[in-house]
Amino acid sequence: MTITVGDSTSLSKTIGEVDVTLYAAVSLDTNPAHLDEVHAAETPFGKRIAHGMLTAGLISACLGTRLPGPGTIYLSQDLKFRAPVFLGDTVTATVEVVALEEKGRVRMRTTCTNQKGDLVVDGEAVVLPPRQKGAS
Amino acid sequence: MTITVGDSTSLSKTIGEVDVTLYAAVSLDTNPAHLDEVHAAETPFGKRIAHGMLTAGLISACLGTRLPGPGTIYLSQDLKFRAPVFLGDTVTATVEVVALEEKGRVRMRTTCTNQKGDLVVDGEAVVLPPRQKGAS
Amino acid sequence: MTITVGDSTSLSKTIGEVDVTLYAAVSLDTNPAHLDEVHAAETPFGKRIAHGMLTAGLISACLGTRLPGPGTIYLSQDLKFRAPVFLGDTVTATVEVVALEEKGRVRMRTTCTNQKGDLVVDGEAVVLPPRQKGAS
Amino acid sequence: MTITVGDSTSLSKTIGEVDVTLYAAVSLDTNPAHLDEVHAAETPFGKRIAHGMLTAGLISACLGTRLPGPGTIYLSQDLKFRAPVFLGDTVTATVEVVALEEKGRVRMRTTCTNQKGDLVVDGEAVVLPPRQKGAS
Repeated sequence: MTITVGDSTSLSKTIGEVDVTLYAAVSLDTNPAHLDEVHAAETPFGKRIAHGMLTAGLISACLGTRLPGPGTIYLSQDLKFRAPVFLGDTVTATVEVVALEEKGRVRMRTTCTNQKGDLVVDGEAVVLPPRQKGAS
Repeated sequence: MTITVGDSTSLSKTIGEVDVTLYAAVSLDTNPAHLDEVHAAETPFGKRIAHGMLTAGLISACLGTRLPGPGTIYLSQDLKFRAPVFLGDTVTATVEVVALEEKGRVRMRTTCTNQKGDLVVDGEAVVLPPRQKGAS
Repeated sequence: MTITVGDSTSLSKTIGEVDVTLYAAVSLDTNPAHLDEVHAAETPFGKRIAHGMLTAGLISACLGTRLPGPGTIYLSQDLKFRAPVFLGDTVTATVEVVALEEKGRVRMRTTCTNQKGDLVVDGEAVVLPPRQKGAS
Repeated sequence: MTITVGDSTSLSKTIGEVDVTLYAAVSLDTNPAHLDEVHAAETPFGKRIAHGMLTAGLISACLGTRLPGPGTIYLSQDLKFRAPVFLGDTVTATVEVVALEEKGRVRMRTTCTNQKGDLVVDGEAVVLPPRQKGAS
């Protein structure tokens, strides 16, 4: 596979209560904003929101399973959390190649949007794609 | 609570096969580097590694449950993945206040180390701490 | 326990979002028909459906825990997927002995129905029941 | 995508204790052969084995995510359980097109092997691939 500026892929998932519960378990992020409906009702958002880093995990899935795909080394990820994701929202992560850099590194724009098209996470990743077989 | 430059907190967790499996479920990141021992044996790491974004989730846990704690709004997170985390490793995330910025924003250095003290994730977060009750 | 043609047992379960999410994790079946509400709305079913093999797992549960029960060796399972199971549906699996065959093998009809009584999975299993203690 | 006899794809996964525990939870198959190490030590296998239907789920993942992929309708699956899968084994599911049948149906050979190459599950599936856009 030759990677070219402009290449992109997307992946979507409905974020349910189960995702938030399991993410809390694996990350230890037991913030009541995610797990306590009564607490969440008193916050500015009015209801429970998904962990920002849970939403951002879909970006990792795009990079690690699709573009560049298995064998990719993840060097860095910058994230800006733009808007909340609520339980039941469907998030689409999109990654797009924006620059080919020194030492084979690839810079990607990485975004997540919700089912209304609102940008919920914005950012950039730098990855090292798997070396092509036969490449010198 | 008054937040001061130099304040810090840490949180540790052993990353097991169950964490990697559940993280794959919630993120859709089913890259075989995490889930397939035979495949992983042929990679440069020689065995399965945890998802970098799973490890980084411990940072979110520090911010959301301890410092600044519940009510914090997570504005941004920059991550550099420095070294792999293997299944069975114990990761310690540490967050430290490095600057108090305009509009009440707080800049934190955010790191993860393994049980040998190796830096595995480095980065910075910017958060908006919960407003103090009674504050003008 | 003597097994006789006509013996049967059933087992029921409500299939929730958590089941679908965890089944996706253990099977790697991350097809968006199961996990992405927006995608599913555009399919002929109009909403998310459970994995057929998740529904069929209730048959395995009947065989392995009830009839014939622990110690049973599962030789084969044929499945016909007749109708979709939606998240929130309650599935009843029923297994019934239909023939006693050579070498102690038992042939069972295996079906799953939803809460309306619709047949959703049909099929047959062949099992080797546990040997009775004291049997020659 | 045109589907041709001989097309095939594979997908691999290490089956861990977490997979067996979660599969037991979602399927209700709480047979001690899978969950009770002391009980399992007294069985002919000598240790815990994975649920046959859990292993077979990887076939569903191949069909639903790769070949034919999302949009496929799963009509039937025949399974023969040939050998046990132990916790820690890595299973590779392979699906291969063996016949193009009436009404657009596709017959696939579906197998699972372990890390030693032993055939653990054999069988056939019949699927209806997603209709191509623009096809009459």
